[in-house]
Amino acid sequence: MATIFSKIAAGEIPSYKVAESENYFAFLDINPMVEGHTLVIPKKEVDYIFDLDEETYAGLTAFAKKVAEAIGRAIPCKRVGVAVLGMEVPHAHIHLVPLQKESDMDFRGEKKSLSPERFKEIAAAIAAEFNK
Amino acid sequence: MATIFSKIAAGEIPSYKVAESENYFAFLDINPMVEGHTLVIPKKEVDYIFDLDEETYAGLTAFAKKVAEAIGRAIPCKRVGVAVLGMEVPHAHIHLVPLQKESDMDFRGEKKSLSPERFKEIAAAIAAEFNK
Repeated sequence: MATIFSKIAAGEIPSYKVAESENYFAFLDINPMVEGHTLVIPKKEVDYIFDLDEETYAGLTAFAKKVAEAIGRAIPCKRVGVAVLGMEVPHAHIHLVPLQKESDMDFRGEKKSLSPERFKEIAAAIAAEFNK
Repeated sequence: MATIFSKIAAGEIPSYKVAESENYFAFLDINPMVEGHTLVIPKKEVDYIFDLDEETYAGLTAFAKKVAEAIGRAIPCKRVGVAVLGMEVPHAHIHLVPLQKESDMDFRGEKKSLSPERFKEIAAAIAAEFNK
């Protein structure tokens, strides 16, 4: 059965998309720690990131770098943090989180509540930087 | 001035080393979230991971995958989590953290206190798997 992330990448479930390539997809986390919190996934459905074949893994990390650079330009932050935990959804995904301070990366903290309009604005701003 | 991590990679400051290659170095975090918490760095001194040149970045992520696989074999865990925050030491570093549950990745939680002997045992166990 396709994971929720495969359905998102295929457009079967809507998302706030920020970037896409042949093999990778990036979209806003719907329960963000901060504005601009983005998930980057391979379209290939593999649960554990370190089980990805070398080529897909290398492509994913390179794609994530480009997305992180776009986030850094679009969202005011000191830098873009990275996290991979991945026990909730069985489809490898990288969290990219614009940080003002280290404690902004807090998986246990309260999530931001944003309007659909705000999500759209943020996704569009990052996408514009990604496509520059 | 050399960062503390450059001095560690050069052997000028002692560390519990788990892996090394020409351009990369991995050692145990001295304030671990859990046993086996490892830091992976490029020997090249760059503050922000996404400022690394493409080749060094790609090599770093590939090296980190090999170290993560060694940690996964050496330390009982469900998977190895990844985090890059990097605001404390101005030298890019990847945290690799063996996880039993997502909340094991907790930058704000209490750190484990381990004896030098235990650090040595853990480093040796991961190094043995890395060198297999």
